[in-house]
Amino acid sequence: MNPPDVLAWRDGRIAALDQTALPHQVRVLDIGTVDELVEAIAALAIRGAPVLGAAGALGVALAVRQASRCGWDGPRLDAEIKRIADARPTAVNLRREVTAVAGHIPQGRAAVEAAAQAVLEFAAEASVALSHRGAGYLRDACGSGPLRVHTHCNTGALACLGWGSALGVIRALHEAGALDSVIVDETRPLLQGARLTCWELGQLGISHRLICDGAGPFLISQGLVDAVVVGADRVAANGDVANKIGTYSLALAAHRAGIPFLVAAPESTIDESTPDGAAIPIELRAEEEITVPAAPAGTRALNYAFDITPAELVTAVVTEKRLTRNGLGLTRPGHARS
Amino acid sequence: MNPPDVLAWRDGRIAALDQTALPHQVRVLDIGTVDELVEAIAALAIRGAPVLGAAGALGVALAVRQASRCGWDGPRLDAEIKRIADARPTAVNLRREVTAVAGHIPQGRAAVEAAAQAVLEFAAEASVALSHRGAGYLRDACGSGPLRVHTHCNTGALACLGWGSALGVIRALHEAGALDSVIVDETRPLLQGARLTCWELGQLGISHRLICDGAGPFLISQGLVDAVVVGADRVAANGDVANKIGTYSLALAAHRAGIPFLVAAPESTIDESTPDGAAIPIELRAEEEITVPAAPAGTRALNYAFDITPAELVTAVVTEKRLTRNGLGLTRPGHARS
Repeated sequence: MNPPDVLAWRDGRIAALDQTALPHQVRVLDIGTVDELVEAIAALAIRGAPVLGAAGALGVALAVRQASRCGWDGPRLDAEIKRIADARPTAVNLRREVTAVAGHIPQGRAAVEAAAQAVLEFAAEASVALSHRGAGYLRDACGSGPLRVHTHCNTGALACLGWGSALGVIRALHEAGALDSVIVDETRPLLQGARLTCWELGQLGISHRLICDGAGPFLISQGLVDAVVVGADRVAANGDVANKIGTYSLALAAHRAGIPFLVAAPESTIDESTPDGAAIPIELRAEEEITVPAAPAGTRALNYAFDITPAELVTAVVTEKRLTRNGLGLTRPGHARS
Repeated sequence: MNPPDVLAWRDGRIAALDQTALPHQVRVLDIGTVDELVEAIAALAIRGAPVLGAAGALGVALAVRQASRCGWDGPRLDAEIKRIADARPTAVNLRREVTAVAGHIPQGRAAVEAAAQAVLEFAAEASVALSHRGAGYLRDACGSGPLRVHTHCNTGALACLGWGSALGVIRALHEAGALDSVIVDETRPLLQGARLTCWELGQLGISHRLICDGAGPFLISQGLVDAVVVGADRVAANGDVANKIGTYSLALAAHRAGIPFLVAAPESTIDESTPDGAAIPIELRAEEEITVPAAPAGTRALNYAFDITPAELVTAVVTEKRLTRNGLGLTRPGHARS
């Protein structure tokens, strides 16, 4: 799956693979308005922290076109752009890329569109770089034998463009002949692991097994996993990591088992303005994502979409620029961003 | 829901609530042969460690009737009874109660049926006793404020007759005015939490919220839970606990958060002949329970139905006879079974 297939700018509109329809249907959304984009993001048709950043970048270009078409004034355009930035709260990439591309508005439409396209290209390139760095780290940490790697949610090209983040690390291990197989959490409630990660691994010809989310810690405790690698929606300045709900339990299990727990994410996911995990907003989604269809009618749910893994449980964070061990002190001297 | 509704002996046959149909349908199975019983157990129409024990007890009575009707000789009857005992491997209750009731066969059919009925009555009584003891422990351990209790899978009357085990402890807290609310894991893949526990809590008028399995550890880490209470399928002599897959992650999170992790189960669940968790057979169920319908066709899964929580993560084990703190040394001097 090449980046243009996941997300692309086409004739002033956004073409996006509908990730709610996979794996049984490959459907491309044709998005021409801010309303349509916000709806696609809220419904997780467009998802994954780096892809959200890229979609936000293209969204600014889309809003600029719509402003011209509909005669929006400056405040209205600003308000529409803010709606895109606020479409989901946890992944910092969305807000960050929206803000960056919006900074080009005074230079005109062409500059905005070029800046947005550059975000996509950079995301794809960064994913490959961080994938190789992460794979090198795991080979050093775990020894040379083919590795059994556990991952959560979906962090491949669908989420990140290019090779992905955690799934990119897995792909790099596979291409180096250093991968045995992958354990994939199904990732309730929306099953991004079962639907998307299994689909991507199948396309790459990588051996994998699907498990229920609750089974991950047990497999780790039984010595069936050599390393855990996950993506991130936001990494705070102290190294705390927000990622898809269910991540924290894997970190607890990996810590107890003494195996690496690697977080793979582009630099755009690191938010030095958020001091720690407690300051990261955690999205609370619709209860029906959990209750329907199994629970009795009227059952209430509590649907946090992400959790926080404290830095001390994170063995390392890898980006396209650096590898920071122990998750701690991402901004400490000697580890400043280059 | 009274015990006869969950499981009963009626005119030489077994009447069992079909737990795969709940909560949307209340359907009673009429079981007249060993084949039908084994099938109902394998399909989880009859489930929950204590109810499996009771069903095994009734199954021996059923087999004795069938032997007489079909002219089975002794070895054939023994083989059929063994099929019942082996219908599921992890819960020790099934094998234990089958063996106990089969010991009455030399005394004739009436003795067998009386012994089987006694197993049901004892299970119901034991559940109420252990429920009150467990509630008392949690009130001592957590202070007097209304408690927010987290539970996993289904451990109510449906699983245990009477009040249940972990859900019985919750009911006892509720009746004592010491319960705030319950967090219920949905318990993939078969959703016993979403389907059965929410249904039972609704009938009892107990406030509850359903969450995805992966969210439990996060909620615990955020201070939203005062205690975790779960049932067990087998407790080894050293205090290691086999329970529904997903239990171990809650124990890890409770341990880190410093809140009680209570295991509630009848004495029949404690297996002193199994030295530790490593010796407990873990049932591996059909891959399709996980893969269908979300994953791409052909996806392989790894479907362990239970996990092992090491004794050191278990704050206490409560039964109808005793409370053993720290989970360790269930058979050590001073904690011998009475």
